Amino acid sequence: MRLAELSQRADVPRSTIKFYIREGLLAPGAVHARNQASYGSQHLERLELIRALREVAGLPLEVVSRVTAELDRGWQGNPIGEALRAMYVPPTHSSSHASKAELERLTAEVKEFLRALPWTTDEDYHDNAREIAATILQVRRYLYPDFAVAQLAKYAEIAWLLSEAEFTGAPEGPGVPIRARGDDIAEPTRRAILGTVLFERIFASLRRCANTMRSMRISLGEKVPPARVTRPGRSRATRRKPKSKRR
Amino acid sequence: MRLAELSQRADVPRSTIKFYIREGLLAPGAVHARNQASYGSQHLERLELIRALREVAGLPLEVVSRVTAELDRGWQGNPIGEALRAMYVPPTHSSSHASKAELERLTAEVKEFLRALPWTTDEDYHDNAREIAATILQVRRYLYPDFAVAQLAKYAEIAWLLSEAEFTGAPEGPGVPIRARGDDIAEPTRRAILGTVLFERIFASLRRCANTMRSMRISLGEKVPPARVTRPGRSRATRRKPKSKRR
Repeated sequence: MRLAELSQRADVPRSTIKFYIREGLLAPGAVHARNQASYGSQHLERLELIRALREVAGLPLEVVSRVTAELDRGWQGNPIGEALRAMYVPPTHSSSHASKAELERLTAEVKEFLRALPWTTDEDYHDNAREIAATILQVRRYLYPDFAVAQLAKYAEIAWLLSEAEFTGAPEGPGVPIRARGDDIAEPTRRAILGTVLFERIFASLRRCANTMRSMRISLGEKVPPARVTRPGRSRATRRKPKSKRR
Repeated sequence: MRLAELSQRADVPRSTIKFYIREGLLAPGAVHARNQASYGSQHLERLELIRALREVAGLPLEVVSRVTAELDRGWQGNPIGEALRAMYVPPTHSSSHASKAELERLTAEVKEFLRALPWTTDEDYHDNAREIAATILQVRRYLYPDFAVAQLAKYAEIAWLLSEAEFTGAPEGPGVPIRARGDDIAEPTRRAILGTVLFERIFASLRRCANTMRSMRISLGEKVPPARVTRPGRSRATRRKPKSKRR
């Protein structure tokens, strides 16, 4: 297709497309006679990815550019890692020497905690650890001065349970590319980044709702029903597509 | 104490304290002879609350002002609700008539879903429902066109489990004020808002870590350990304070 059609189908202005090509986020079209370039479905997909990363995930252009560069490296790259790192930079308000040293120490402790979990791999989780450590410093400062890293155990356990539910329940299966098969990683990357962002919002909303309801019930002396977890392995209901659309 | 001491202890400039008093976020001090006002511990507490809401929760001043106004109303107010509402305003990119109507319809459906959960109360959850609905619209647009509200069930179940773990595991107990006893709500409100914000960050970090590890394991053909949940009711370990600080 020509530039005009690409622009229309992707709903991205032509000048923006040209800018992406200049900046290396998008491959140039194949040049034919009469100096006309033609674009294929991979251009359309890439533009949709860029739009989603900008609009839904709220990533700045330079980060989107790093993600697409990693995508272009294929299995040698780490586009999801780049995106997640960029999305969740822990705020570093306090920059005194003392608190920097404390953050380093705590980050090392959180790393050790993560490494000891049954489900972690050898993958580097420095960024996660640092982010968690920075937040624990605030928890200690504003809420529980004695909050220990070991108290994360419950959260980690439930995070792994949620992860199991999410992967099992994904309408089209986990959609994880298999390295040995040489699967294409572009579309799984898009889904992983957007799934991370969107379901994080949904889950956070439900958690706030749950905590509000729980404190209402306690405050008013009402019954607090115990949590009940149906393991995704036992019930296959979440695996199926919805029987009917209830819209 | 005098203004200078209050300013020093709260680590808030005098001019800012005066501004908060003018704006009604902070009660004026008791005026003594020689035109000198004196301040008490409640002023210090309020200043610490304002700082935490600004710096940790990132709330704009006008929202902090609404929260403190609700606090001053005591049990008639809803300071936590005000804060949470302000913290999580769903982005409304699409404002066409069609999508507005769709959002309304979906919000109603999410409300119905929430109402049917075993743990919800009669409390109004319009904001939660709207936020979830707005995100589902994006899920449908970018990930799963057929995503049904009923698929939230698993998330809701795990949110309630997390809520149970959080309330049971709070080092000083749930800390929910009891209306019938006329408990003071200022400090529980502070803890509820900050706990919501900080543990949301921690849990989101762990979830991202879990999802990354899970996809790494699938991708590389490694074993994926099943999730295991120790119910907080059975083990009291999380209820205790940590035996030793492992720093």
